[in-house]
Amino acid sequence: MAQRPRHREAPLTKEFARIAWLERLFARTHERGTVVLGIGDDAAVLRPASRLLVWTTDACVENVHFKLSWLSAEDLGWHSYNAAVSDLAAMGARPSGALSSLALPCSIDRKIWQGIARGQARAAKALDCPVIGGNLTRASEVSIHTTAIGEARRPLRRDGAKVGDEVWLVGGVGAAAAGLSVLMRVPEAKWNSAMRTCVNVWRRPKALLQEGLGLIGNANSAIDISDGLAGDAGHIAEASGVSLVLDAEAIESAIPTRAKTVSSLLGCSALDFALTGGEDYALLATGKSARRPSFARRIGIVERGQGVWLESSQKKVRLRAGFDHFSS
Amino acid sequence: MAQRPRHREAPLTKEFARIAWLERLFARTHERGTVVLGIGDDAAVLRPASRLLVWTTDACVENVHFKLSWLSAEDLGWHSYNAAVSDLAAMGARPSGALSSLALPCSIDRKIWQGIARGQARAAKALDCPVIGGNLTRASEVSIHTTAIGEARRPLRRDGAKVGDEVWLVGGVGAAAAGLSVLMRVPEAKWNSAMRTCVNVWRRPKALLQEGLGLIGNANSAIDISDGLAGDAGHIAEASGVSLVLDAEAIESAIPTRAKTVSSLLGCSALDFALTGGEDYALLATGKSARRPSFARRIGIVERGQGVWLESSQKKVRLRAGFDHFSS
Repeated sequence: MAQRPRHREAPLTKEFARIAWLERLFARTHERGTVVLGIGDDAAVLRPASRLLVWTTDACVENVHFKLSWLSAEDLGWHSYNAAVSDLAAMGARPSGALSSLALPCSIDRKIWQGIARGQARAAKALDCPVIGGNLTRASEVSIHTTAIGEARRPLRRDGAKVGDEVWLVGGVGAAAAGLSVLMRVPEAKWNSAMRTCVNVWRRPKALLQEGLGLIGNANSAIDISDGLAGDAGHIAEASGVSLVLDAEAIESAIPTRAKTVSSLLGCSALDFALTGGEDYALLATGKSARRPSFARRIGIVERGQGVWLESSQKKVRLRAGFDHFSS
Repeated sequence: MAQRPRHREAPLTKEFARIAWLERLFARTHERGTVVLGIGDDAAVLRPASRLLVWTTDACVENVHFKLSWLSAEDLGWHSYNAAVSDLAAMGARPSGALSSLALPCSIDRKIWQGIARGQARAAKALDCPVIGGNLTRASEVSIHTTAIGEARRPLRRDGAKVGDEVWLVGGVGAAAAGLSVLMRVPEAKWNSAMRTCVNVWRRPKALLQEGLGLIGNANSAIDISDGLAGDAGHIAEASGVSLVLDAEAIESAIPTRAKTVSSLLGCSALDFALTGGEDYALLATGKSARRPSFARRIGIVERGQGVWLESSQKKVRLRAGFDHFSS
């Protein structure tokens, strides 16, 4: 959206017609003082209230992160936008705005790209994070690269976990992975209500911005769970030079009942979904027991050492890895 | 690069090994006070000196913007980075940093993605615009989505052109398009010295940041030429509600001699290359005659009306369109 249609009086070419449509749609998402200049120039211009900016970029690529048969175009716009803004939530930032770099096949149906944009616009409204620019290009597959900026006086980082901290989980885990498994393995005609619920959790995640803000001043470290609880706990452990010991029972209790039902129907372990499935966009944090906010659930402790461990009444095992884009 | 390898002691999986390598490479590009937190967390953290931020995103997609046979991987990293930062030049901004969202086929040779990153790192150094984060994902084709932030006290916009302004060109035009034609039509074994020069202009553009800064306080409007002089002049005309009348002879004199030689060898018009070929990343601006900087060339005037016109001693014709990603 760095460009505008050049000749409104001439028959509009596809690209400029698309940009004009997107410009009108996204203009409604920004009515805020921080946006000095939105879509329609070489770049957007922002005047943030504070001087400390948190800046992220995230990608959703067809046949890697999704198949178009798995969700509606509007779901896709919503999903990709929340996935990107979730990084701001993890840093305890308040969103300023986002740019959307959209790559589309030449032959794509108008309903699809307009649906994607509508989903982005709805998410922008819901998250109070306006779309203020972007880019549009051809490609052989659909991909959405979203970059978002937020403001945070004291950004939460991965490297602040301290020995003696509790490990906190904010939000549920496992339902998105269960939903994704349903999409990959069960024809829609055979979905029951629990399956439908889990699929919707995967299709429509919500970046936990309010909760992220609520962690500031309380948590010593934080991350969003995009690659699975085990892997993202590993990021905190490594960055902070500590070990995270997770309590299997406490994690079980953070798995929604419907995700357990679906796991059982699919012959899978709900705990596995929770540990290795990302895309619930829950937040993982650590902090002192006395500082735990009411919305956070204690699921473990921070100890000296390294790595992530899972402890149950029977045993304590070391966990490894999450989703690897280049090996799965 | 929002993530780090999780288990350094375990055999590194491909993704995390790649991220660790990129983290080390790009760490060398930022030694500046504005970067509070670089690669390795959910998001980067910046503390810009000024409150007015200019923010852009740009994409380079395989088989749309380039073929891997047309340039080295390092050229590609350099090219894509300069193309993105050129938007900051057009706004008269000083770069703060960039995030790189890189999509790569699973099977890609290590030399290629490392080459791309080396080209980005070199461009980052040359432009004083550090790579402070990003994202890495699988895809079926190579694509690089670069988002860049700069600071500008008074950003230059497209909509400020005034009747009576001169039209200024900063940098040469036509050589990149001539080089691209050579790549598409002439086997490398048959290139002469002029062809090689033009190909190198296309492969290694340079964002005109210093010139963009030099336009501030002098120009009333500005844009970078990424889609061709005619099309980008059209953006200024439309945004400003004016007409731009370009002088064919003055444009001819801004076409490098080697681009003219190549055009002649290919049986093409050098003026066509200048008007419709983008990717020289020259700057187009308008301003009062008395304010024209020494580095800017007068190539036309701003008049009442609409559209872009090309005037020569024989005739005056209206120009249309540039590169359309969805129709060519």
